[in-house]
Amino acid sequence: MRASFYEGAGRFRIGPAEVPKAGRDEALLRVRRVGICGTDLHIFQGHLDHRVPRGGTIGHETLADVAEAPSASGFTAGDRVVVEPLRVCGTCRACRSGVAYLCYSLKVLGVDEPGGMQEYWTVATDRLLRVPAALTDDQAALIEPLAVATHDVRRAAVKAGDRVVVVGGGPIGALISMVARHRGAHVVVSEVNPFRVDMLTKLGLDVVGPGRDLAAFVDSWTEGDGADVVFEVTGNAAAVRAMTDLVRVQGAISMVAIHAEPLPVDLYRFFARELTLHGSRLYAREDWEEALRLAAAGAVTLAPLVSRRIPLESLQQGMEEALRGGPVMKVLIDLAG
Amino acid sequence: MRASFYEGAGRFRIGPAEVPKAGRDEALLRVRRVGICGTDLHIFQGHLDHRVPRGGTIGHETLADVAEAPSASGFTAGDRVVVEPLRVCGTCRACRSGVAYLCYSLKVLGVDEPGGMQEYWTVATDRLLRVPAALTDDQAALIEPLAVATHDVRRAAVKAGDRVVVVGGGPIGALISMVARHRGAHVVVSEVNPFRVDMLTKLGLDVVGPGRDLAAFVDSWTEGDGADVVFEVTGNAAAVRAMTDLVRVQGAISMVAIHAEPLPVDLYRFFARELTLHGSRLYAREDWEEALRLAAAGAVTLAPLVSRRIPLESLQQGMEEALRGGPVMKVLIDLAG
Repeated sequence: MRASFYEGAGRFRIGPAEVPKAGRDEALLRVRRVGICGTDLHIFQGHLDHRVPRGGTIGHETLADVAEAPSASGFTAGDRVVVEPLRVCGTCRACRSGVAYLCYSLKVLGVDEPGGMQEYWTVATDRLLRVPAALTDDQAALIEPLAVATHDVRRAAVKAGDRVVVVGGGPIGALISMVARHRGAHVVVSEVNPFRVDMLTKLGLDVVGPGRDLAAFVDSWTEGDGADVVFEVTGNAAAVRAMTDLVRVQGAISMVAIHAEPLPVDLYRFFARELTLHGSRLYAREDWEEALRLAAAGAVTLAPLVSRRIPLESLQQGMEEALRGGPVMKVLIDLAG
Repeated sequence: MRASFYEGAGRFRIGPAEVPKAGRDEALLRVRRVGICGTDLHIFQGHLDHRVPRGGTIGHETLADVAEAPSASGFTAGDRVVVEPLRVCGTCRACRSGVAYLCYSLKVLGVDEPGGMQEYWTVATDRLLRVPAALTDDQAALIEPLAVATHDVRRAAVKAGDRVVVVGGGPIGALISMVARHRGAHVVVSEVNPFRVDMLTKLGLDVVGPGRDLAAFVDSWTEGDGADVVFEVTGNAAAVRAMTDLVRVQGAISMVAIHAEPLPVDLYRFFARELTLHGSRLYAREDWEEALRLAAAGAVTLAPLVSRRIPLESLQQGMEEALRGGPVMKVLIDLAG
């Protein structure tokens, strides 16, 4: 079979590999689609070399067909599945508290352990979810980022009538916006990339584009109150400095983005307005189930987010292009062709 | 009468003044005690010159006797009262949401408007609370900081069995520790000032003193889990950098201290452990009522926190000494003598 291998910062190699053997309680999957995610770009730049082994296979946004599965698992060959890419210890404080996705010894498949950027992949069957027939392969390949979004919106307790600001309109920001809108919230997205501004607008979202003063907009939009919830999805320091000015008294900021370095935060504003900041990471099983439900019901629009499909052989160029930014939302590796 | 006047950074003047006239719905108070608070030290250093007028009278931790009050108020001459030192607009988002103490146009008596560091003071009668006879004047003068502490502990939802770390063992940190302990939490206080370490220990609190590794202590104390709640009460940047390492998965950090400048925060830790940070400011009426209840019941020990009483004429020296640190917790101005 063909597989991809991370060879160090800036380098992927595609080559032959043995089809892996499924262990007890595992299924052998035939991969159909793998999304390239922001985390994958961090890996490509060498930022996660302390976690990703040389020669490792990454990819954690995966749609696959079951090739073989133990009969007790309830899965059979041909089932179309998405993969919750986590392995947890089962004994730490997080696992004991019902939030195993925050396991103190968490292993993410496609980061710490082999992922989906290969033709065949073995995964524990308790990490598989069946995909409804209503979803195309491209839509189904977006279930993982959609589960991130349903988790973020659930954890922020967004409710009907809330005024929500999503700072950063990439794939996760767009999905958060649509999930929050489906809950009945009024949503504004801040984004600077013109291609993304255009797409967000076509998705029916209100966008504050480049060159506009977001704080002044929010102040006017909320008649001086401030927003109920702000999602920080950019990962940049300027957004972190500005986020505290957008929120109403006792409002919430959801930290979705990954900030590798400590950044200056206006703690006085937290004190003065009794703001809340909470981190929001990954997903619980219920977030996956909600993502599948919303996608199957057409409550969120997924297809336009796929900017293009590339073969596994183009992984290196795909990463380089994604890093350059430009007219792109989600790039999928198509292994089904 | 005698009054104190802020004359700019580093300078207070004591001099004569007219006894103020109580307006409609106001009482005339004869001040007995006023505490010197961290905010007052900020004022003394000129940090709040945008709020405190030249020639203004500060002081917001006040115990007084009612000298005159409208009969409809329910207060009569001789009533011993404490003062909730806030004036609110009544119409903003905070006032409409039941958190008027976070009023968008909040005026703090003793900061934005005249305070208690004078012999007589006029205050709206709806800001007065009667003091139970069980409390001495010194104890009653600590009701305002105790209301800060009951508010902080309530907002952090500390419950029996929680493991709580209070970073900073000055008056507010000590009071938070005692209120949290009264709720049944296990409490550890981090403090570097040897005088305060000694006093906290005498109050029966577990203290992590200077030169000890707080993160290592908490890790061991909580068997690797991390604390349920951390209160940041120091106001220093090193504590802000370190606070995120002390907290369990989905645990909370309460931002009690005032940080005038944005400070670096480990946002990755917020993401990875889904931590929560919330600001905690001032108090609602229920926090004052709880403070009076706890004080009267002896549930918190107040008297030893009063390091000394000084006359109004020593305000300038009192501020200078408090700024130097050293063997001091709370200094009270005694106007009853």
